[in-house]
Amino acid sequence: MTEVLELAKRLMSAHSVTPATGSVFDELEAMLEPFSFTIKRFISGHGETGSPEAPVENLFAVRHGPAGSKHFAFAGHLDVVPPGGGWTSDAFAPQVRGELLYGRGAVDMKGAIACMVDAVKNVPAEAGTISFIITGDEEGPALHGTRALIDFMREAGHQPDLCLVGEPTSVNRLGDMMKIGRRGSLNIWLTVEGTQGHVAYPHLADNPIPKLVAMLAELDALVLDQGNDWFQASNLEITDLEVGNPAHNVIPEAAKARISIRFNDEHSGASLSEKVAAIAEKHGGTTLPIISGEPFLTPPGEFSDIIARAVKAETGVDPEPSTTGGTSDARFLRAVCPVIEFGLVNATMHKRDEAVAIEDLSTLSRIYARIARDALT
Amino acid sequence: MTEVLELAKRLMSAHSVTPATGSVFDELEAMLEPFSFTIKRFISGHGETGSPEAPVENLFAVRHGPAGSKHFAFAGHLDVVPPGGGWTSDAFAPQVRGELLYGRGAVDMKGAIACMVDAVKNVPAEAGTISFIITGDEEGPALHGTRALIDFMREAGHQPDLCLVGEPTSVNRLGDMMKIGRRGSLNIWLTVEGTQGHVAYPHLADNPIPKLVAMLAELDALVLDQGNDWFQASNLEITDLEVGNPAHNVIPEAAKARISIRFNDEHSGASLSEKVAAIAEKHGGTTLPIISGEPFLTPPGEFSDIIARAVKAETGVDPEPSTTGGTSDARFLRAVCPVIEFGLVNATMHKRDEAVAIEDLSTLSRIYARIARDALT
Ligand SMILES: [Zn+2]
Ligand SMILES: [Zn+2]
Repeated sequence: MTEVLELAKRLMSAHSVTPATGSVFDELEAMLEPFSFTIKRFISGHGETGSPEAPVENLFAVRHGPAGSKHFAFAGHLDVVPPGGGWTSDAFAPQVRGELLYGRGAVDMKGAIACMVDAVKNVPAEAGTISFIITGDEEGPALHGTRALIDFMREAGHQPDLCLVGEPTSVNRLGDMMKIGRRGSLNIWLTVEGTQGHVAYPHLADNPIPKLVAMLAELDALVLDQGNDWFQASNLEITDLEVGNPAHNVIPEAAKARISIRFNDEHSGASLSEKVAAIAEKHGGTTLPIISGEPFLTPPGEFSDIIARAVKAETGVDPEPSTTGGTSDARFLRAVCPVIEFGLVNATMHKRDEAVAIEDLSTLSRIYARIARDALT
Repeated sequence: MTEVLELAKRLMSAHSVTPATGSVFDELEAMLEPFSFTIKRFISGHGETGSPEAPVENLFAVRHGPAGSKHFAFAGHLDVVPPGGGWTSDAFAPQVRGELLYGRGAVDMKGAIACMVDAVKNVPAEAGTISFIITGDEEGPALHGTRALIDFMREAGHQPDLCLVGEPTSVNRLGDMMKIGRRGSLNIWLTVEGTQGHVAYPHLADNPIPKLVAMLAELDALVLDQGNDWFQASNLEITDLEVGNPAHNVIPEAAKARISIRFNDEHSGASLSEKVAAIAEKHGGTTLPIISGEPFLTPPGEFSDIIARAVKAETGVDPEPSTTGGTSDARFLRAVCPVIEFGLVNATMHKRDEAVAIEDLSTLSRIYARIARDALT
């Protein structure tokens, strides 16, 4: 068994449905110690179990290079989404079948974290400073995960020059895609208040639903932008409608809807919230926006070139720089230094029988080592 | 205490929240017996208590006139809506305070039924046939109330020439309005099915909400008609929206709405159901229509003249013939003979502290007697 496969299996054996705590971090700490990392573990959040404020475990590990050397950071998460049903083998008993390793977290992203750890042995200590920014809450509310790690790093004076997030960005084969940016994410609750009444006497009531319908028709017809060099067009989806009126003969007193906007770097969460609020107001409604993440972009250049060279050398593939898909913790790390995401093939992420090609683990370990060495040069 | 006030109090003392059964019918039966009515009481419906098919009590009483004489029917209901809270006195302990009699059913419509009974003493037996068509379920689903009474009358060969329903049609003072028609009522459930997906990948999903929104916008803009001589314009209200999607990042798989249409005699429930179905289909949706009642109209003429003369003689008021407001059991009785609704002042119907002016009871008793005598002439 290769060393990286063994590391992956150790991490995947730990139950760590989001938010991850305890044993999975013990495993990672034990793996990093032989490489002389200084390790800081801490719990953030003090809410009740199950609430968005529930405690979250975080780990920051750093191995300092010579004075004045560069600082390269690996970032990722040890929590996983719930396994769900229908697995061929136990989701937390990693199993090799043929050329694949099965288990929750195989690609998202315990497998990638194993590759990061395994890569360290191929990065000389004198090359520069290497760190691990690892949270136990990326798949959950993410209120006390990477954000808390960034706060800690600021206070402790740890300032990476470049950061690689190990999300599973490859699509059809290892190396075919990296994420140089992500769209922002915004949910807005829309409410129209009216006056309840009987359908037989509509002049005595004020039905809020036609106003909400007109508002939603206008929002649905909005063209936010045409996309740009690095981003697809921003997109607005209406995700919920709610009145909750069981009485057939009653005009209800309020109508609600929710929209979700994925937006590129031509907008901010605030600018879109204002735009939607103006349309809502025009139709007699009000809004409650919640910004889940601002967009980020690390424009193609030095960092993406480093990654592309490493991928090309190990796989022969030219990774496409992309900004598609959902959000990740890169939305927070963008505030620290240039950040790019690159990792395993995402075909089975969040699905049953999540699996990684064993050979991909070895290849990704070598790619990560090349990236780190090149970044520290 | 006047006799009609005592009759009203006796009926109002019986708990008879819809569907009414038992003691309130015993009271009515006892009141009618001295006038030599033949009384048929029967239970319809065999469903569970609380279901729309729950048992309902009905009463048909007839006093035959000489062979070949005309037949005039009083119709109404002994069930009442629930009292709700906040009453000054017990809703089922009728109480006189000042010039008013308080209690649930005072105007809708135990008070009017007391007037009908009281009126009989002023209609000579030889004038013609008089009947009472009284149900215990008008305020509820009305599946086994007046419809069952009509079935019984058909089978037993009772065929009124004119029918007066004692709903509280007066608005500001006794006699100012009668209902010569009512609009029809139709509820339609609308559904659009889509394909669930993640908001970050809308091209893999099919959001049903924009289709529903476009459908509702078109339905809301519909002009069904302009009204006509006797009816106001038909009206469509959107009464409910439902998606029920708690996941902010998920495009839901189905979206639903409900509309309620009150329509005049230029439409039928079926014609409107087809019209809405065509619009729904255009937007990828389906419909489930439930017709609560077809419109009815007894055009101004002989019957409304009889009522107007009686009202004018007793109150000095000219009653306005109207077709506004909700539905009543006249929607069923229209199939039997010309039907008009006339009764007490409806200001407090279905409200707390429902009350009737004691003098109005005496006046309405005299009006009903005049109408019956005139109708039988
Ligand atoms: Zn992940
Ligand atoms: Zn009524």
